[in-house]
Parts: sequence; C-alpha cells; structure tokens
Amino acid sequence: MVRECCIDIICEGCPVLLVIDERRRFIFQARRGAVQGSDKGVLRHDDILGKEYGSRVKLSSGIEAVVLRPRLMDYMERGFRRKTQVIYPKDHGLIIMLLDLKPGMRVLEIGVGSGFTTAVLAQIVGDEGRVYSYEVRKDNIEIAKKNLEKIGLANRVVLKHRDARLGIDEEAIDAAVIDMPDPWAVLHHLYRVLRPSAGAVFFLPAVNQVQRLLLALGLHGGWVGTSVYEVLLRGYEPRGDALRPYTTMIAHTGYLVYARKVHMR
Amino acid sequence: MVRECCIDIICEGCPVLLVIDERRRFIFQARRGAVQGSDKGVLRHDDILGKEYGSRVKLSSGIEAVVLRPRLMDYMERGFRRKTQVIYPKDHGLIIMLLDLKPGMRVLEIGVGSGFTTAVLAQIVGDEGRVYSYEVRKDNIEIAKKNLEKIGLANRVVLKHRDARLGIDEEAIDAAVIDMPDPWAVLHHLYRVLRPSAGAVFFLPAVNQVQRLLLALGLHGGWVGTSVYEVLLRGYEPRGDALRPYTTMIAHTGYLVYARKVHMR
Amino acid sequence: MVRECCIDIICEGCPVLLVIDERRRFIFQARRGAVQGSDKGVLRHDDILGKEYGSRVKLSSGIEAVVLRPRLMDYMERGFRRKTQVIYPKDHGLIIMLLDLKPGMRVLEIGVGSGFTTAVLAQIVGDEGRVYSYEVRKDNIEIAKKNLEKIGLANRVVLKHRDARLGIDEEAIDAAVIDMPDPWAVLHHLYRVLRPSAGAVFFLPAVNQVQRLLLALGLHGGWVGTSVYEVLLRGYEPRGDALRPYTTMIAHTGYLVYARKVHMR
Amino acid sequence: MVRECCIDIICEGCPVLLVIDERRRFIFQARRGAVQGSDKGVLRHDDILGKEYGSRVKLSSGIEAVVLRPRLMDYMERGFRRKTQVIYPKDHGLIIMLLDLKPGMRVLEIGVGSGFTTAVLAQIVGDEGRVYSYEVRKDNIEIAKKNLEKIGLANRVVLKHRDARLGIDEEAIDAAVIDMPDPWAVLHHLYRVLRPSAGAVFFLPAVNQVQRLLLALGLHGGWVGTSVYEVLLRGYEPRGDALRPYTTMIAHTGYLVYARKVHMR
Repeated sequence: MVRECCIDIICEGCPVLLVIDERRRFIFQARRGAVQGSDKGVLRHDDILGKEYGSRVKLSSGIEAVVLRPRLMDYMERGFRRKTQVIYPKDHGLIIMLLDLKPGMRVLEIGVGSGFTTAVLAQIVGDEGRVYSYEVRKDNIEIAKKNLEKIGLANRVVLKHRDARLGIDEEAIDAAVIDMPDPWAVLHHLYRVLRPSAGAVFFLPAVNQVQRLLLALGLHGGWVGTSVYEVLLRGYEPRGDALRPYTTMIAHTGYLVYARKVHMR
Repeated sequence: MVRECCIDIICEGCPVLLVIDERRRFIFQARRGAVQGSDKGVLRHDDILGKEYGSRVKLSSGIEAVVLRPRLMDYMERGFRRKTQVIYPKDHGLIIMLLDLKPGMRVLEIGVGSGFTTAVLAQIVGDEGRVYSYEVRKDNIEIAKKNLEKIGLANRVVLKHRDARLGIDEEAIDAAVIDMPDPWAVLHHLYRVLRPSAGAVFFLPAVNQVQRLLLALGLHGGWVGTSVYEVLLRGYEPRGDALRPYTTMIAHTGYLVYARKVHMR
Repeated sequence: MVRECCIDIICEGCPVLLVIDERRRFIFQARRGAVQGSDKGVLRHDDILGKEYGSRVKLSSGIEAVVLRPRLMDYMERGFRRKTQVIYPKDHGLIIMLLDLKPGMRVLEIGVGSGFTTAVLAQIVGDEGRVYSYEVRKDNIEIAKKNLEKIGLANRVVLKHRDARLGIDEEAIDAAVIDMPDPWAVLHHLYRVLRPSAGAVFFLPAVNQVQRLLLALGLHGGWVGTSVYEVLLRGYEPRGDALRPYTTMIAHTGYLVYARKVHMR
Repeated sequence: MVRECCIDIICEGCPVLLVIDERRRFIFQARRGAVQGSDKGVLRHDDILGKEYGSRVKLSSGIEAVVLRPRLMDYMERGFRRKTQVIYPKDHGLIIMLLDLKPGMRVLEIGVGSGFTTAVLAQIVGDEGRVYSYEVRKDNIEIAKKNLEKIGLANRVVLKHRDARLGIDEEAIDAAVIDMPDPWAVLHHLYRVLRPSAGAVFFLPAVNQVQRLLLALGLHGGWVGTSVYEVLLRGYEPRGDALRPYTTMIAHTGYLVYARKVHMR
C-alpha cells in the first residue's frame, strides 16, 4: 500500500514517474538506497527523495530527466501489469460522462481485466464511494489487486472472484460498467441491482455483440436512452513549426453501449 | 439552490428529465401544481411527485413518457442557458483523464462560457474540492451562476469576473482548464499558480492557435509532456437489426493541448 | 446531348459552372439570349459566349463571378436531378482504386439511382469502354438517362430496366459496382459474368448487410481478397490564418465491400 | 517492358499476384522454368503458365494458393521499389475525383517519388493521355522508371529530371498533382501552364505547409474553389460473425489542397 505522501515532496514510498524522453518513461516507488536503471543512465533514488515533484534531475550519465507524480494514465501506459486488452482512457472519459460519475457513487463493474477501469472508477467515486468488481478469472483478480494496491485505491474496491451471470449481491447501484463478451447474460441481474434511472455502459469489441445486446435491451423492456458510440482519439506531433497528426492511431478498441434503467411496462 | 432530494423519489424541487421520445426531452424542477407542456401532451407535475425516478407516466394525451434524474450531459443538451459554444462531453471525458481529476482537487478554469465545463469540474472534485473560474464577460458570469445553481454545484465554484491575463489570485492549483483565444497570454501566471507536476489542458478551435501555444510552451521552458489531441465521437443508430453510424457528426469542436509544469532549467 | 465544345472557349451549348460565392453555384448550358438568375444578380449568357472558361464575369448587379467547366463532382453537388441518396465522391475514389478502373473496361453496375456512379464509371472507361447498368425502378432509369445525356456520357452506358436478380446478360465483365439492398441475391449471376480475377465493390449502408454479404461470399467459395472499408472525408475551412476542420461532416454514407472472383474449389 | 498479354490467360512475361494468405502475397512475372519461393512452399511458374488468372494452384508443400492479375493497389503494397513515402490509394481516389481525371488528359506531376502516383495518373489518362513528371532526385527517377516499365505504363509518362521551381516546359495542362515540400515555389509556373478552369491538387504532410500554401494561393489571386481535405480510410476484419474495425489504422498521410485556375483580376 502507498503511504499518504507529503503533498508536493517525494518521500520514501512515494510513486514517481521518471521521464527521460518520449520513449523512456518509468514508474516506481522511491526507496532509500534503490536505483532506477535505463539505457541512458541510472537514477539514484536518494537524489530525488526530499525533492519536489516536477524537479529536474541528472542521471549517472549526466543526461537530464524530470520526476513527476504519476497520473492514472501514466500507470496505464507504464506501471500496470496487464494480461488482457484494457479499455483506453479515450473510452474511460466518455464512460465517466455517460454515467455521470461523481464522488460517493456505488459502482458495479463486471469484467475487471487488469484493473485499470476499476482504478478509474475508484478514483472518481472517492473515499465515500465504492466499486464492486466481478471477475471470473482468478489470475486477473490477483493482477488487479496488486495494481490497485500500488496506486492506493484498493480500499475503495470490493474485488469478487465470481461469475456475475450467476447473480449479483449488491443493491442500489448508481452506475455500472460491463466489460464481458456476453453482457446479455447478466442483463436481468443488472437490471435488478441498478437504482431506477441509473445507467450502464457496455464495452464490446465486435459489431455482432452490439447488435445482440441492442436486441436484448429492446426485448427486456426496462431500458431507455440506449445509445451506441465509438471514440476516436487522434494525436498530433506537438511541434509548432511542423504540426501534423501521428501517422498511425488506434482505430478501434470497442463500442460503448449506454442504457438507463426505467420501470418495466 | 436545489434541495438535497430524497434518494430515489421525486420530491418538490427535484430536477426531472422528461423523455417523451428521442426529440422531445425536457428538464424542469418538480413543483406542486405546475405543468410541463409539449406538442404531444401535457404532464402534470402532481402526477410524478412522490414517484420513483425511472417511472413511466402518461401525458394528458395518453402518450407514455419516462421521468429520469438528469445527468450533466442531459443538462448540456436541454437545460442550460447558453451564449457561446461549449466544450463537448467527448472532450470533457478526455480532459478528466488527462488532468487525473479526482475528489478534493483545487481546479483553475479560465474562460467560463455558460458554465458547463465548470459544472463537470465541480461534479468531479466533490464537496472538498474547489473550482476557481475566471471570466471576462459579465453576461457569461450571470448565465454560469444560474446554471450552476440550478444543478446544485454553485457552492463548489468561485466565479470571478476577472481577466486572468492580469493575474491569478490562487495558489497550489492541482489542475487547470484554459478555454480562451490567447492562452499564451496567461502562461506565466498559470505556471506560477500550478503545483509542480500539475497539468493544464488548453482548448483551442483553430490550428493556428495550437501552433502558437506550442511555440509559447517551448519558449517558456517550464513544461513537459506536451501533447495535442482531438476527440472524434461517432454515434450509431441503436437498432440491432439495422445498425449504422448516424449520417452526420460533429467533426470538430477544438483541439486539446496538454502540458505539465516542471521546474525551469 | 452535349456538343463536343471548343476546347477552352464557351460556345453555344457548352456546360458552365457559374460560381458567385461558396453557396451560390449554378450549372447550365450556355444558350444565346438566355439568362441565369440568382439573388445576387443576373448573368446574361451572351456575356460569356466566346469567352474562356476560367473568365471573370460581372452580374447585372456588378458583383463579380467566375465561369468554370463543371467537373463530375460539381454536377453531383448542383446539376443532377436526384431521387435517392447517391454514393459520394469520397467513395467513388476508393471504388476506382479498388477495381483498378481504366479506359476500355467493361463495367457492370447494379442499382443506378440517379446515375452519378454510372457517370463516374463511364468517364473513366472512356469511349472504348462500356458500362452496363441494371435498375429495377423505371423513374430512376429516366432520371439517370437525362443526367448522362446532360454530361455527354450516355453513349458509353447501356441502361437496362431489369432486375439483375433474375439474370445478367453480359459476359467477360472487368469490374462491377453493386448498390442494392440485397447483393447476396445476385452473387451467383455476378460470379458467372465476371472475368476471373476481376473485382466487385458492394455499397451497403448498414452493418447487418455487410455481415450477411460476408457470410454469402464465404459460403459461395469463389471469392478472395474480401475486404471491408469505410471512407471518412474531412474538410477544413481554407483559411491560412485560421485553419480548422468544418464543424460537421458526413460521418457515414455506406460501407464498401470488395472481393475478387477466383475459380471455385 | 510487359508484353500485351493474352486477355485472361497467364503467358510468358505476364504479371502475376500470388496470394497464399493475407500476409503472403507476391508479385512477379511468369517465366518458363522460374520458381517463386515462400516459407509456405514453392510455386513453379510452369504450373501456372497457360492457366487462367483466378486459378487455384498448389505449392510444393501441397498448400493451396490463387493467382491473380495484379492491380495498381497490389503493386503498391508488394511490387514497387520505394524510397520515399508514397501517397496512398485512399488519397489517389479523391485526387482522381477532384481533378476530374479521364482518358486523354495531359497531366502534370511535380514530385515523382517511387512513381506510384505517376502510375495511377497514367492508368487513367490512357494511351491518348500523357503524364509529365518532374523530379529533382536522380535516384527517384530511376526507381520510378523501373516501376512504370514493370507495369507497362512507361510509354504514357515523360519523366523529367528537372527542378520545376526553375520552370515547366509544357502548356495546356488539364490537371496537376504537386507533391513537394514547398509548392508555393512553383505556383507561378503552374498557373501559367494550366489551362484555364483546370485544377491542381497539392499533397502536404504538415499543417504549416497547408497554411503557407493557402496564403500563397490567396495572394496570387488566380485561383478559386480552394479546399482542404484529409481522407481517413478505416478497414474492418472481414468476418461476418465477428465484424470489427482493425485495431490500428493509418491516421495521417497528408492533407490534400485543391484549387482551380481562373483569370487574374
């Protein structure tokens, strides 16, 4: 578990994002006596303990780098152990908006993967909120647990090694994120545990899954506002004198289907 | 100010989103004796007071509708008074992720517009957080104030009718959103008030502004991680038997430029 | 029928694109004594007869305009009578590349609509090529015929008021464009009349049609290189001092499915 | 030079596209006694000479493959020697439409690269058309020459090892494609040699180049219809039972700027 670190100063145990250049970025916890290696030189942790985040430091090679407080997005890129493809920040952003996520909410998650989406949800709901996360694979649970502990969010998450298709324990859920191949199989359980008017987002890689879910939502009859989205994020080379989009981009992660619970007819 | 309403039940003063069909959506506060009109029939507020959000109701015409708790996104579409083009939810989502927004943060906003971005920031930072919002136009301040009061978020926001180019009062800011035509004019003030390692997102409609900002960030020397993005959101007709993207889409709102404060060389 | 007009000079009967400004564009044939009206003033045809294409002219109001030789794309925007949604130039371009269209080819078209795609095909195959176009609706045939005559391409096209699902007369077809809701219903006929190794492009608005066609192509067994595309065209406001994408764009016309005929197993 | 091959039959010297699977695609000329190797087995050319394009063949390993007539797009992917980044077929398609390319046209090209765009232009203008191609680098000229000979289009192209900024010899040009870093440097020559009303497309990778060209076109005063485009091509995994976009895509090749010559004021 990460200690609550002193606001702006890097202390023993504080998480650090070391940026040497665009490609060389490392995340670690500062530990007296430890070192962080790279092909551009070594950083002695002792050189940054007691310094401010945002400081410039020198590697053993004399090359300059900066130390930053890692954001969730930085963890996603560098610091998370991962087994499966995770939802991307471009999608998380829209999920937050669609579900109207805010502090204090009780959120249900089905399909945890490496726990990155879990972390995003836990960060937003805050200490008074709670995330209930169902996952059928034991190895994913272990990875997610480690990842959440690393960033100090584990206390807001109830990780459950359970198949949500067999039932969901919680009630009065404010919002749900469903990342599983056959979400129609949990639709009745999901409906029961959501508070009326609450929304769910389903993440689905293939068109066929979207179609099947839309049919299931329609047949069920207790959902409104059903919408389907995909988010495309385009990055640019950040050069004022030669601005241009990067040559390649992620063209597809998955489709987002949103729907809200209402009373049955 | 909106009363803290009873969790799931529509009470006097509670905000309501009435959905008759895709095009007919209304947001209002429930008031005993009041009515909500539409070309498809009239809703008597008395018919929904005491009912659950998510209920189905009958209009005077016999047509069925549903009543929902409005999300911020619903307010943006229907309930906000607006004078200028606002940043879209597709952009807000990425802004939240880029800035690692979370409860308790102190956020700076320059350029308030109708207050929608302000509301998004205020919703995420929660009651312990604070949003400091600078705006040069008096009429925008008035509109934003009304909008924020309507959704019960005004107490988390300090609206300032001030030109941030002349100075920023706050300190130890955790994150900033800058929506003004000439952000380079506030760069030095912004740098001073941000906590080290904290990030800022600049929203800019035209390429030329992005280029000029990139040059200014580079010349200043106290920023890293500079990135430029655009977010494209594509919606689909939600029909399982005839799925297809909507014919038209918003192709451009603006570019997002992100950068983080580090120590000067 | 359009006379073969004198290379660069506007003669009696020559097609003219009059551009007053971005929104005021007119296509007509120059006729001695005729006038072209607009809310910005009137153009007397006599004022342009004998002048070069590319000339600047004055309307009755004194406002300046230019006269250009219309391209197919200009006809599509202004000069074509239309009943149904046409495939867009962004799609035509890719179709030309996928089918390797060139002068002298014999092209099959199923689904003529207003004849715009027909015109594109006819323009590329030249005088030695031929386009065979099947269309079930009589009114579409009439419109397409008029449109093709207007631009002088009718002599390269054989318009057939026939249901291609009942059979196709031609043989040794070099390339095919299929724009109908149920292309799987012509697959066997299409296969028979294509030369081996020749390709076909299918235009389909909905995802479900694409899926069904893919299954049909697979079951048939005589096709390779099957690919599915969508083309997104993004326009920018052409201002060097304030470059930005247009706010809205056409997000979807249809999917293009390409496949090539090979011997059956 | 490629012999004019017998319509549908693979003869000595005919170009062949061998497709073993999605990743294993080879282009070669059929030669008695020759072999085409691959890690999946060897193809003896003698096994396909005299057979129809579109035939299924067995490799030495017993694995089945098909032989096709290569399209220009296939050459681009497999058969062309290349030194520089070429314009992509997605862009060529729009270029053909914007310039209204057709048989018999006289087309100017500045910036030849590996000759792929040259080939596209030459294929469309046919035997009565002509492509005049300027290129400053000798090695590009050599590569383009070989590539054009390989596909039998060299006779329609006049390759010029010349700097177009110093002047253009031709006149009465119907259309132009300009792929060079500083197109503003040829604008006056280009204007002079284009027929009035004819169009030019400029291919530019960076935003800054687009801005500078737009300013130059405006200052010159002899151009109308100026437009800026980018083409995004999105491919899908062609599986009816699990349709989804490919994960990555080419997000950027370059911007296309189109303008037409008119009389100076």
